[in-house]
Amino acid sequence: MSTATATAAVPPYSELLGQLGSVCEDRGLPGLAGRLHDLQSWISSDMAGFEEVLATVPRGASVVHRSAHHLLDLGGKHLRPMCVALAAKLGSGFGPGARQLAVAVELIHNATLLHDDVIDLGDTRRGAPTARTVYGNAASIFAGDWLLIEALKRVQAAKQPGLLDRTLATIEEMIQAEALQLENRGRVNGVREDYFRVVEGKTAALFRWGMYAGAAAGGLDETVRESLASFGMKLGMAFQLVDDVLDFTGNSQVTGKALFADLREGKMTYPLLLALERQPGVRKAIESIVALAPDQPIPDLLTSEVLQVLDSTNGVRDCMALAKDSAREAIECLASVPEGSGRDALVTVAEATVYREK
Amino acid sequence: MSTATATAAVPPYSELLGQLGSVCEDRGLPGLAGRLHDLQSWISSDMAGFEEVLATVPRGASVVHRSAHHLLDLGGKHLRPMCVALAAKLGSGFGPGARQLAVAVELIHNATLLHDDVIDLGDTRRGAPTARTVYGNAASIFAGDWLLIEALKRVQAAKQPGLLDRTLATIEEMIQAEALQLENRGRVNGVREDYFRVVEGKTAALFRWGMYAGAAAGGLDETVRESLASFGMKLGMAFQLVDDVLDFTGNSQVTGKALFADLREGKMTYPLLLALERQPGVRKAIESIVALAPDQPIPDLLTSEVLQVLDSTNGVRDCMALAKDSAREAIECLASVPEGSGRDALVTVAEATVYREK
Repeated sequence: MSTATATAAVPPYSELLGQLGSVCEDRGLPGLAGRLHDLQSWISSDMAGFEEVLATVPRGASVVHRSAHHLLDLGGKHLRPMCVALAAKLGSGFGPGARQLAVAVELIHNATLLHDDVIDLGDTRRGAPTARTVYGNAASIFAGDWLLIEALKRVQAAKQPGLLDRTLATIEEMIQAEALQLENRGRVNGVREDYFRVVEGKTAALFRWGMYAGAAAGGLDETVRESLASFGMKLGMAFQLVDDVLDFTGNSQVTGKALFADLREGKMTYPLLLALERQPGVRKAIESIVALAPDQPIPDLLTSEVLQVLDSTNGVRDCMALAKDSAREAIECLASVPEGSGRDALVTVAEATVYREK
Repeated sequence: MSTATATAAVPPYSELLGQLGSVCEDRGLPGLAGRLHDLQSWISSDMAGFEEVLATVPRGASVVHRSAHHLLDLGGKHLRPMCVALAAKLGSGFGPGARQLAVAVELIHNATLLHDDVIDLGDTRRGAPTARTVYGNAASIFAGDWLLIEALKRVQAAKQPGLLDRTLATIEEMIQAEALQLENRGRVNGVREDYFRVVEGKTAALFRWGMYAGAAAGGLDETVRESLASFGMKLGMAFQLVDDVLDFTGNSQVTGKALFADLREGKMTYPLLLALERQPGVRKAIESIVALAPDQPIPDLLTSEVLQVLDSTNGVRDCMALAKDSAREAIECLASVPEGSGRDALVTVAEATVYREK
């Protein structure tokens, strides 16, 4: 529960940016570290406003409310709401409507996590027991349903013409991506097309939505909205590719997630996809890990074989390179966005994403 | 799979009304039987229109689509869509917007069933294996999520001001009722207030929504819409009370559901609530049945004890009496509705509801 206490003291976005800043310092990137620091100051009152509206999500005694708040109270990174805020600030600012949309994107994200944890039988999330282990699978399913409805109520409250339709389409895309991931689960499917469809749907689509929604609430014109939506898509892709890398190289104390967790759940990650393409013989080791029962430790021999192949095939290195490409493409999407601190902030976020360690 | 085949040939609503007509004939109610026959003719082209729109729900290869259509294809009774149609016909008719709403109410209903079956570990539904037993729990969860989104898209497409907000509020009410049922599950909770909150939320609220939505699409004024919504609420209550009775007296060949199924899942039904109030000693037998593993048959001694107490305490009889009261109250809600075949049809539905055997 230490994570929950820590995030209560320091806002999650702030913890994330601060930690990213330290990483950049350590890597000899003082310029980026300085810009992250500026970003933190620039956005702090907006994010405090977001936290205030997030705190208005009803908190009743029912097991549904308690399951949902169990997860929400663990904080997360609040990166998606930050996208909404940054996009809105490019226009008329992060006003009440945009704040509702920032809460909506966070609730949609948490709704999918509540359902995912039931599906994956996940035991820990954000360094704490999952809602399903505390309140049961049934409560976690209903809590996900509830947060989805709460999110949609907030999209409605923001009164942006056409935005609810876009929200429904995005959620549908997310569900289809989750379904594709589910169908491929445990199959060690090294099909590139499937991999990118899953990542676009389950991760990038919601970043895209957040940027679009913030831009709409900020009163930006349709061209800029779409540019920002594309930025969000590319940023989300970079974000997921880094997540994939962290499954093999992360510090579980920092990420709050065990190493090889995606692999054990039979979820294809990009480094593995590259390793399979370049050294198909590794399939057997991967399949053996996927076949392990959740409580069985991974034999050291298998761990070292997979890590060695990821190294010799440059799987991890090239995944990180693709994440950087994606972040660069995100920045290219900002060409039509007027120069200024708003655009600078987005550039900073995209550049820093590839350095995150949680 | 015989049920699936049968419902493919005869539309579900038609099968239901025909069967209700036969029951009424058998019970010496030729008048009501005749009116049911008239209702069937009166609504047949509308319900065919509904089936056409229902058939447009996308049918892809994904496991989500297949799970959802597994359930949808088994038909159900289509009573909720019929409510939408009947309400719309009181106004300008069952046009394209109203048809979308009729599909929406059916999709919301099916979405809850897909999640419920995962939560209750249900193996059969509508006389066939549940989607979760065929495609797995995960697919069933995502299929429920998907149908909910599809339903909301249709509510949006119907373009009725304020209706989406009402839909979200209704779904939230359903989730909270399911949560309350979940919290009380297996506890043999004989608290009247909880029982009625669960029934109102999980069953009656969606009937209420269907009547309101149909009335709105039919262009009826707000007073009539609200009267029809109240009618729907009372009808839904009567519907659920009959469902409760069928858990003890139903023919599982007809209902598609095993006897004592609700009881085994630890769900409180009204006959049991009455039995517990009037003969508290029956609690032990009830708890023993709830405690059985799903594959354990109920010992004959327990079955006969519960049935005997339900008889001696008039639990089943008084549940049916309350269903009839509720149906009568539904009809009283129609006082402000102009006389004519539309109103007659609603009276027929309310009167016949208490005779249903499936």
